[in-house]
Order: sequence, then structure tokens, then C-alpha cells
Amino acid sequence: MADKRKRTKVKPEVLKGFRDYPPAEQIAREAMLATVRESLELNGFLPLQTPSLEFAATLLGDHYTSETLGELFGFTGPEETEMALRYEFTVSLARFVAANQQDLPLPFRRYQYGNVWRVDKPGPGRYREFMQFDIDIIGTRNRLADAEIIATMVATLDRLEIERFSVRFSHREMLNGVIAWASVAPERATDVMRVIDKLEKQGEEAVLLELGPGRVDSSGDRIPGLGLSEEQIARLRDFLQLAPSVTHQSLQSIVELTNDNEQVVTGCRELTEIVEALDALGSNQSQFRIDPTIVRGLGYYTGPVFETTLDDLPDYGSVFSGGRYDNLVERFLNRSIPAVGASIGVDRLLAALKHLGALREQAATAVALVTVMDPERITDYLAMVAELRSAGLATELYVGDTRNISKQVRYADRVGIPFAIIAGSDEFASGQVTVKNLARGREQAAAASDRDEWLKAAGFQETIARADLIPFLRKQLNSRD
Amino acid sequence: MADKRKRTKVKPEVLKGFRDYPPAEQIAREAMLATVRESLELNGFLPLQTPSLEFAATLLGDHYTSETLGELFGFTGPEETEMALRYEFTVSLARFVAANQQDLPLPFRRYQYGNVWRVDKPGPGRYREFMQFDIDIIGTRNRLADAEIIATMVATLDRLEIERFSVRFSHREMLNGVIAWASVAPERATDVMRVIDKLEKQGEEAVLLELGPGRVDSSGDRIPGLGLSEEQIARLRDFLQLAPSVTHQSLQSIVELTNDNEQVVTGCRELTEIVEALDALGSNQSQFRIDPTIVRGLGYYTGPVFETTLDDLPDYGSVFSGGRYDNLVERFLNRSIPAVGASIGVDRLLAALKHLGALREQAATAVALVTVMDPERITDYLAMVAELRSAGLATELYVGDTRNISKQVRYADRVGIPFAIIAGSDEFASGQVTVKNLARGREQAAAASDRDEWLKAAGFQETIARADLIPFLRKQLNSRD
Repeated sequence: MADKRKRTKVKPEVLKGFRDYPPAEQIAREAMLATVRESLELNGFLPLQTPSLEFAATLLGDHYTSETLGELFGFTGPEETEMALRYEFTVSLARFVAANQQDLPLPFRRYQYGNVWRVDKPGPGRYREFMQFDIDIIGTRNRLADAEIIATMVATLDRLEIERFSVRFSHREMLNGVIAWASVAPERATDVMRVIDKLEKQGEEAVLLELGPGRVDSSGDRIPGLGLSEEQIARLRDFLQLAPSVTHQSLQSIVELTNDNEQVVTGCRELTEIVEALDALGSNQSQFRIDPTIVRGLGYYTGPVFETTLDDLPDYGSVFSGGRYDNLVERFLNRSIPAVGASIGVDRLLAALKHLGALREQAATAVALVTVMDPERITDYLAMVAELRSAGLATELYVGDTRNISKQVRYADRVGIPFAIIAGSDEFASGQVTVKNLARGREQAAAASDRDEWLKAAGFQETIARADLIPFLRKQLNSRD
Repeated sequence: MADKRKRTKVKPEVLKGFRDYPPAEQIAREAMLATVRESLELNGFLPLQTPSLEFAATLLGDHYTSETLGELFGFTGPEETEMALRYEFTVSLARFVAANQQDLPLPFRRYQYGNVWRVDKPGPGRYREFMQFDIDIIGTRNRLADAEIIATMVATLDRLEIERFSVRFSHREMLNGVIAWASVAPERATDVMRVIDKLEKQGEEAVLLELGPGRVDSSGDRIPGLGLSEEQIARLRDFLQLAPSVTHQSLQSIVELTNDNEQVVTGCRELTEIVEALDALGSNQSQFRIDPTIVRGLGYYTGPVFETTLDDLPDYGSVFSGGRYDNLVERFLNRSIPAVGASIGVDRLLAALKHLGALREQAATAVALVTVMDPERITDYLAMVAELRSAGLATELYVGDTRNISKQVRYADRVGIPFAIIAGSDEFASGQVTVKNLARGREQAAAASDRDEWLKAAGFQETIARADLIPFLRKQLNSRD
């Protein structure tokens, strides 16, 4: 034992880019997840779980390199197998669909939530383990599926009591058509979209320079350009200048601009169908709109793409985004299965909700702490605990050192339990119990104008008949809501 | 593209020891987790989340070897750091408490659930990734904390509607006292307990042989014995023979047997206090009892230990177990912080619930599928979807290929959605809608005695006024419960 005491201690630290979620934050997260799940199930999505670890080739395709594996938490595991922690859910979904294609009724509407892991450089609000929530519909090209995904996004944010948000969507085929009309070769379309994607952050001038000769950014770094011709850039500029005024009623203006380009016609027709479906589904028109310059980063999108920003917190970026990707299952199968989906960044959205004050902050799960003033009467305290719990009131029994009653009340206050129940010999003799309203005490103490008021507030409590305890607490709790 | 088509495909497989949870199983898991969380919060436990990956030294202590690391999913990650996936939650909890000791109000009552990972040999029902649910109370030696953990175990299993289960508990100090009374040296106590732990599976004779000369098991393998003296074994036999008759009323018999051994006296007194507290907390006496031979495997327990078996499925082993461990935080701090906790094996309990028929099996989240018979009337179908969802009825819109109505109904049946809503030109003309009750159809079809009955059952449906759709579905759903 002497040896044991001398041992160096392990530092109680978490890995770089990882974090704990203490109770107050975890309560808010659980509440948000429950609301999201409720919304997704109401909209007819089914839960799926897949493993956290997958074969490296599943996640990255079989031509992966040690470099691409290094962007994931990848390693050689048991049986000398190269594996990695998932960095998103979509590939695992494709793997699941490919493996179960014989039995799985299509279209398959599923949601999945859980942690994903990426070896990014950690920074404020950027973690290497974070939670994501995905919805997807697999196995149909029907535009109603795209509309269902968007309608579900709108309904879910609504249910989270976020009022001011914008789901904006565009169409990759329309963008490809615009780029073709500008006489840019199809193999450069991805580069052009990557530049257009910067429009919101960098502005039109920067984008036009990056399409052409390149530019020098504010920190003096040279950003190379795509070297498009003046004529190509002129056409793309016409599109970018038209884009902000385009609504679903005026999509025809893009068709006209591009001389009825076939891809543009198809893209615009599908966007119109989606908007009509959203209207029929009763989605609030102020919460979604067409924005022809939305691109979304990921290479694999093939049709409509959408993203969601919070009107009051544009800096948080997109909190819910996705699109149609019709080729992903091809990694596993000799045929393509079409799919459309979207993803919520849970922790980013949670941070935003907190910032907006739309999060009901609650530090404790228990509404009452039963204190132990007189250990001789322990049976009475325990009976009180049992009675409160049977009535559905979440109750904690103080199980620490019971010699000091004010320490127990302070504990309830620190944990954030709103009510402390106190009974000593006086109360037992008279069949009463004292209820201390800590939350109200804190509020009044904060508002107190002098020391006397503060003392009175800090001691905010009522002594009531023991038999009235449950109705009294229920009434108090209702009045707080 | 030609090249792409020729590429070898990645096999859509999961890693050895890993598995998917398809919707029907995941729905049941989510429901069980929600019930457990509800119960734990009602009993005043707070949620905590810690990272899935930790420093190897956090999980294993700083004297870990490549061999011990190999029992976990351990690897050298970014920044050349040795890390591993957690194999349980207790060490991470100790790390969290050590790191936050200045601010954390004690006692700290927390629950945590999530996946843990172990490199065990996979087998039927044994996975390398599995879900665990822990409750612990940190920072108090008060026996009320032990009682609260046990009471919460009982309440949680009750809430899961498991009626016939037994929480059995013993006390490590009492066992140590018995072993000391048998004149076995303290450093051999762990070995003796390891043998006693086999009592339930192997029987008394095998245990006594393993305490002495050893034995040959049924497969012919020689199991070495501890080589205790006949006198030592005789005393342990007296204890083992007394044990089955011991209840909390007759704990005194162990004290008498061991001539008032001090540790036995302490252990029995604490067990009595726990039983009295459980009674006062209203726990059902038929669901918990003292069993002096309960040991629990893990070395770190220091006081009461408990485990839970299902009366009707003893082969499933313990589904909820734990004990007091007062030394764990010492890995991180120069002081000890006492703790007591228990752990549920989520997937084992889920398998047991399924076996017991205590699981409400439900394949789909949606209660209704709105089919699309006439694409011209799509706006009407979408309005129906919106109306059902607004009424809180989880609804799926059929978004697959809508050319074939019977395919759509078959889809609802395969997914397990109970009602399919159908409207064609007849229904639209007469302001009606057809509701096909697939669940009832299946039941009646199964009970059908001839082909005509079967056909009628398979087509079980009613045509009702469109305006009655929601009340009709509500009534049907209520009658199913």
C-alpha cells in the first residue's frame, strides 16, 4: 500500500478535441434529441443503428491510402483488420442497404443519430467527436421524397421552437446546365461550383476574380483563379446577378437566361415540383425558399441540394443540410440506388439554441431534494421520497453527510434542484413539513434592493401540512412553467 | 465511367463482433432506453456524457502494457497519442470527478449510457460493441446511497414491466470476515471469493474441491485447487451451508457462526441498514433479498455488492449488477472518493425482455401510409398527410414509384405500418377515403379457415367519409392497445 500511495497519478484529462458533457448540458442535449426523434417519427422515419467502427474500405472505398485513413480515427485492430471510426452515417447506410437489398422494403426512410469522429484540427466549438442526426430516403427518384426531406427539416426546426430560419435549396443539374451554357467544360463544373459556394462569405467580386485570374485575400495570401475566359465569366456573372431575385415563381428567368438549356429546364421543373409539394404539405412559406447559388460542398450530390441557416445567427452557418445523391450505393453494388437526405449538426444547433434563448435551461432532473435533518426519523424521510416518486415527482434523497442541514440545502441549490423539503422535530410534532423554494429564492435575492430583502428572499420557504406536500409541489411547479 | 463500372466492389459487411440494429430492433431499444432514463430521472440521477475515446493510461492506469491495451480497441492516434475506446464508464466517471472536484457538488448522482467496446471473442449474443447503462453515486459512504442504488434498480425493472426478478446482495467486508474467521490469509481472500463466485453454476461440491485439492471438470480438464487445509475448508463449508437459509432477519446467524468477527459484524450491520432503507423506500420485498454468497467478479468492490437475475430466465445471468468501490478515483487523485453504482447490460436485458414477451414489438413508427393512386390529385394526398401529422398521427407518404397501388399497400404491410389510406377517383367524387387495416387483415388472414375467408381478411378495409378520417384512425388505434 505504501508503494501504491507513492505512485504517480494519471492526469484526469480528456484527449485533444474531446469533451465531457456535464449534466446541465447533457439534459439540454437529451431534450433536444427527444424532440428531434419525435418529429422524425411523426414524419414517418424509422430508426437505424450501425456500428461505430467499420472496415476502412467501407468508409473510404477500396483505394484508400494511409493519408486518407489518417483523416479518420483509423487503425489496425483485432485479426489485423484495418478499421476506422465512422466520420458520418451515409456510407454505413449505403452499406446496410446493399447488404439487405433482398429484404428491405424500398423506399427506406430512416433516421440515425450518434457520434461521428474526424481528425480535424480542434478549435472553439470544433471537436473530434461530435453528434450528428441524419434523415434519408433511399430507393426512389420521386421528387416527393426530396419534398418530404425538406418538409421534415422545416417541421423539426419548428418543433424545436426556432421560428426564424431559412431552408434554401437549389439543384445541381440546374447549376450544371448554367455552367454548360457558360461554355465551361463539364470536367471543370465541380471547380466552378466550389468557387460559387464562396459567394455568401466572400461576395460577388471575389468570386468573379477566383473564376478568372485569382485574387489576393485580406491576409495577403494569393488565391489562384480558374482562369476562365472573359466571356465565360460574363455569363456566370449574369447568372449570379440574376440569382438573388429568383423565387419559385420566377424560375423561368433562369431558363430564359440560359436559352432553354436542357439541364436547367429539368432542374427548374424539379424545383417547382418540390415547392408545390411543400405548399401542399403545409410547410410555412416564410421558412423555405429557392436560392440558385446554393451548392453544398460534398462531391456526391446529384440533384436538389439544401441548407438551413438561422436568420438571427447567420454566422453559425448551416445547421441542417443535405441533398440528393444517386450514386453512393455503387461502392457496394453493381447498380445505383437513388437517395436523398439531410443531416443536423446536433451540437452546433444546440449552441445556437442556447444563444437564441430557445433552450429551456435546467440543471437538475429532480424537482425536490428530501433532506435528512434527524437521522432517527430516517424512515419518515424515505417514506416521503417514495410518496413523491410514486406521484411522478422526480425526487432525490440527500445521501451525503447528514449532520449539517444548511449544507444539504446548499447542495440542492448548487445542483439546481428547485425545492428542498425539510422536516425536523417541530415539523414532525405538528404533522407539517417545510418546503424551501430555492429557484424563487434565487430570483428574489437577485432582485433584492437591500440586505434585509436579500436575507428574506434567500430564506424563501413555507411550512405546510405534511398531507398537502404533493398538491403543494405540483401547484408550485405548474406556476413556474 | 467504363473504368468505374469494372472496379471491384467493396463487400457490404460489418466487422467481426459488430452488428446493425435494423428499425424493428432499434425501435424496441429506444423505447427501453427511454423507460430506463425516465426511471433514473424520477429517482434523482443526472445524465453525464464522456468521450468514447480516452488516453490509454486513463482507462488502464499508467502501467498498462501492449497486452492489456490489446484487450481494448487501442491504437496510436493523432499527435502520436496512445488511446483506446472505453470498455466501461466507471473509469471515465472517476476521471471526470477528479478533474471537476472543485466545482462538483457531492454526492454526485449520475447516469450514463452509450456504447462500450471490448476485444472479446465474439459469439452468439456476444458483441465487441455493446450498449451499457450505468448509475452511480459518488462522494458518500452513507449506506442510504447503497440503498438508493438498489431501490432504483428495483424501480427501473418494475417500470420495464418485468415482474419476476431478484436483486440479491451481499457485502465484501462480511465475506472478508468469514474468510479471516476461516484462518485464510487476507492476501488469498480474492482467490477464495473467485471460487465461491462459482457456487451457483458449479455447486457446493465443486467449490469445496477447488478450495482444496482441485478437481477435474466435465470435459476432463483439470482445475487446480487453492490447497486450503481441511480445517479451513470445513469452516468455509459451514458458511456455505448456512448461507442459503440466511435472510435479513437471520443475519445474526452468520455473526454467531464466525464468533462475532468484527468485519462480519460491520458487514451484517450495513446490510441490515440497507434492507431497512429499502423497506422504507417502499421497494417490493419479493424483489430483493440478501444472499451471502454473492461476490461479483470485479476486483475493485469494497462493500455491498449486488446482482439481478430474472426468475424466469436464470440462464441470462445478471442483467443489472454493481456494488460499492471506494478506491477507484485514487488513480487520479491523492485521496479516495467513495462510490457505489450499478450497470445494466442493455442488449442482454433487451434480449431477455423479448424472450419474456415483455417487449411491445413494433416494426414501424408511422401508424398510417398515405398512398398515391392518382398522381393528378397529389395535392389532396399531401394535404391528408399534413392533416394527419398535425393531429399527432405519425404518417408516411408513399414516395416510391406510384404507378401500382397494390405495390404501395404491400409496402405498408412489409414495413409494418398498420393502416394504408387509399383514395381514387371514386372516393374523391364521393368525398370519401378507404382505410385498409393491415394489422387486422394479417390477424384474420392467419385465422382464416378457407380461401374465401382468407381473401376477405386480406382485403380488410372500410370506406369512410373523408372528414371522419382522423377520428376513425384514433378509434382504431385505441382499440388496438
